[in-house]
Amino acid sequence: MIHSLSLSDVLADHARSRPQVTAVVDGAVRLTYPELDARVTRLAAALRARGVAKGDRVLWLGQNAHAVLELLLACSRLGAVFCPANWRQSADELRFVVDDLSPAAVAYEPSDVTQALRQEGWVQAGEEYESLVATGQEQEFPQVDDAEPVLALYTAAFDGRPNAALLSSAALVAHATSLLVVRQMEPVFTFLNNGPLFHVGTMMFCLATLQIGGTNVFTPAFDPEEVCRLIDAERVTQAFLFGGMIDAVAKANESGKYDLSSLRFVAHSAAWDGMITVDDSPWCRSKMGGYGQTEVGGMLTFLGLAEGGAGFAGRPSPLVQVRILAPDGTEVPAGETGEICARGKTLFSGYFARPDLNAEKSKNGWHHTGDLGRREPDGTITFIGPRLRMIKSGAENVYPAEVERVLKSHPAVADAAVIGVPDETWHQTVKAIVALKPAEKASEADLIDHVRTLLAAYKKPRHITFVDSIPKRGFTPDYDALDEAHGGGNYPGA
Amino acid sequence: MIHSLSLSDVLADHARSRPQVTAVVDGAVRLTYPELDARVTRLAAALRARGVAKGDRVLWLGQNAHAVLELLLACSRLGAVFCPANWRQSADELRFVVDDLSPAAVAYEPSDVTQALRQEGWVQAGEEYESLVATGQEQEFPQVDDAEPVLALYTAAFDGRPNAALLSSAALVAHATSLLVVRQMEPVFTFLNNGPLFHVGTMMFCLATLQIGGTNVFTPAFDPEEVCRLIDAERVTQAFLFGGMIDAVAKANESGKYDLSSLRFVAHSAAWDGMITVDDSPWCRSKMGGYGQTEVGGMLTFLGLAEGGAGFAGRPSPLVQVRILAPDGTEVPAGETGEICARGKTLFSGYFARPDLNAEKSKNGWHHTGDLGRREPDGTITFIGPRLRMIKSGAENVYPAEVERVLKSHPAVADAAVIGVPDETWHQTVKAIVALKPAEKASEADLIDHVRTLLAAYKKPRHITFVDSIPKRGFTPDYDALDEAHGGGNYPGA
Repeated sequence: MIHSLSLSDVLADHARSRPQVTAVVDGAVRLTYPELDARVTRLAAALRARGVAKGDRVLWLGQNAHAVLELLLACSRLGAVFCPANWRQSADELRFVVDDLSPAAVAYEPSDVTQALRQEGWVQAGEEYESLVATGQEQEFPQVDDAEPVLALYTAAFDGRPNAALLSSAALVAHATSLLVVRQMEPVFTFLNNGPLFHVGTMMFCLATLQIGGTNVFTPAFDPEEVCRLIDAERVTQAFLFGGMIDAVAKANESGKYDLSSLRFVAHSAAWDGMITVDDSPWCRSKMGGYGQTEVGGMLTFLGLAEGGAGFAGRPSPLVQVRILAPDGTEVPAGETGEICARGKTLFSGYFARPDLNAEKSKNGWHHTGDLGRREPDGTITFIGPRLRMIKSGAENVYPAEVERVLKSHPAVADAAVIGVPDETWHQTVKAIVALKPAEKASEADLIDHVRTLLAAYKKPRHITFVDSIPKRGFTPDYDALDEAHGGGNYPGA
Repeated sequence: MIHSLSLSDVLADHARSRPQVTAVVDGAVRLTYPELDARVTRLAAALRARGVAKGDRVLWLGQNAHAVLELLLACSRLGAVFCPANWRQSADELRFVVDDLSPAAVAYEPSDVTQALRQEGWVQAGEEYESLVATGQEQEFPQVDDAEPVLALYTAAFDGRPNAALLSSAALVAHATSLLVVRQMEPVFTFLNNGPLFHVGTMMFCLATLQIGGTNVFTPAFDPEEVCRLIDAERVTQAFLFGGMIDAVAKANESGKYDLSSLRFVAHSAAWDGMITVDDSPWCRSKMGGYGQTEVGGMLTFLGLAEGGAGFAGRPSPLVQVRILAPDGTEVPAGETGEICARGKTLFSGYFARPDLNAEKSKNGWHHTGDLGRREPDGTITFIGPRLRMIKSGAENVYPAEVERVLKSHPAVADAAVIGVPDETWHQTVKAIVALKPAEKASEADLIDHVRTLLAAYKKPRHITFVDSIPKRGFTPDYDALDEAHGGGNYPGA
């Protein structure tokens, strides 16, 4: 395995190449790379002594902490799989995760939810965790193939239950490297982990910072004043900040109490730009745009690689291929809508214990993202929306998300959902359920005309039903409820 | 093979993502990515029709040309291996290459040497090559695993004959990506291929430019005036230039006739810096330093990642691990000399048809570079010199290159070589053969003292023999001749 490079290997090299660099800061804890390497070895040894073997799962139920990175790296050293669960979930939701993963070891922070779930042998963060690390003996671990999964992150609930996407060291290292390219990260780089580490958006920058041999600063969760304090104290280069979070941080530093000039980050507002150093990397210039999902390791396409192209998702990462495919697996021409599919170095290894879903998502040798997109004439990609389900009208495929996006672009429309209604001639016809803005008016004919001017005629709704609000499941329409209320059915493949 | 990304895949993605970008410029030839993709498909089809199959070798005997990149990409599409041979070699040397590789197809530029070697079926560059491309039919090729070798580059002659280092698509893509990081390359990047493409130093930037979707400009060989003309005409971002080549280009543009401001490159001299745009990437800041060899894909360590550390080879690429190992495979402590060994994503796949050498070079799961290095206390790496052979004195290992380097640091020494002389007590003792500078004087005792102050006592020569000049084989001392002339022998493992 001369070509293998696991996360554990990256750490082992930094311990030699960067003996004086601070790897981790978390409250009073400061660890150099050799110190982190030694702790990870002891933690891996302690987990092995407790019976954690290759392929076993190790679960973290808690907020951000350096223990998250240590457990991930110890799992890499062991060949085990680490899962930082979403600690904001209810006891029932977390119980599902525990049952689904059947972890060989669990570390937790005390809370009402973890107290309700707690089982014998679980290790409490803090003193118990430190005692565990202290019991581990220095030892050699055999090399682990970097194609083995090392990180599990729960993602969107297809079929009503969440699924743990498995990411290998090879995928995580490749994705981190793509961020090094687009973010132009250099070895002297300090990342503030203030976003949730159970989400790929924060985890990917934590790992890119590890990859380049920088410093990861951990804070339990987003607190604007604490973010200011840490940026100042640790000379932070980048934090997990966008939109309203940036406004909140700028407001917390209104008095100019903290020196945020070490932050080399995106331009946002006059107040913000005056506090930080506006960065010119492709990532920062593009205001962090692109398209991604956990299953591709984070980002699949980067707006920073679009050079002004039309598609707001930008262009693919240098380490992947992207195809826009029709349901039959053929490539759709530029300008037409299809499913965003991908291959390449950053892709996940399937979901844990979901063989049928894995076969479906990787059919024909391409990962099917479940999202719709379009290739613009300049080659850039536009993300349209989740595929979810497809309507078959005549020989044509109609994706509700595409029609909904156009309906919602009408000034009078507050929200919209599109369903397929059984039809003897056409198999299905398109029906839209629309909620208008309180003070606005638009007729059925107005809205159908609006769609017809922007999309192919077969995609326009035959009928529109007006409602006060669209029922939702998370961020997306509750299509089952809509079908039942408005006569939907006959979906292809259903 | 959802994680595979071959060079052919990279091209296929750019054909979709960058339909309007110029991929290749070579004289009057200008190809966009879709045009290059279509030509590569036709070339691969034509080669397949001529019997080139998976694993077969395809040879180029000629100077730089866009055909070099096309043949490499066509071989990637086919699963074949492309070798651009060193066209400066003699007919005998190139005959060895032809015999060694037994290529299934050869393309050549006419010269005295290629006329002497030419066999039936060889394709002449220019019209014959274009006719070959024209015969190929558009078709689908099955996916090729990116772990398969795709490029063969001949390297140093261990054991008296050169060996073809095989590089896979995975290694080349990984190495290209490491350059994207350290050179901070962006999609709008134009590289002038004016160095030899049979050498990894030029090829690695050609492939990094491909990887990021930039433009490769080809010129047959280094001509300062033509380099100026092309930089101006094609708005070139980087060329293969260092040291005296930079001076020659600056001199060729003394009159300021050409606008070289598009070149974002290393600072060198006042005249040069005024013509170009001095670049601030780690690569350019460091004046391109580091340590590398073909077998690691190009660069193993980058001075641009050293952040001012002591070791002139810098720190490892983010995609490899480096260890300094003793002959018994154990790691030597920081500050001590050992062999530079490596693992990781950019490493080669062994030499073509050299099973014994491959086993030797990859023993214990580490690639053994054959070069000596030292880890400095700050973790950076110092390259010392080729290992070549080792002297065993008592229980201690003495590397001639290390002692020679110290001898040559003495102001009176012009050149030095160190051999091992059989010894009943110590197995071998160290003997130095030294050539002094014409006007300088130094005694045997002076030089032994000089070594003793800088190295461990067991490394100092017991005897010094003064000669007028050191016999050489290429750049290194001819140790066989020296042993014979000065009583060397008893080498461990010999």
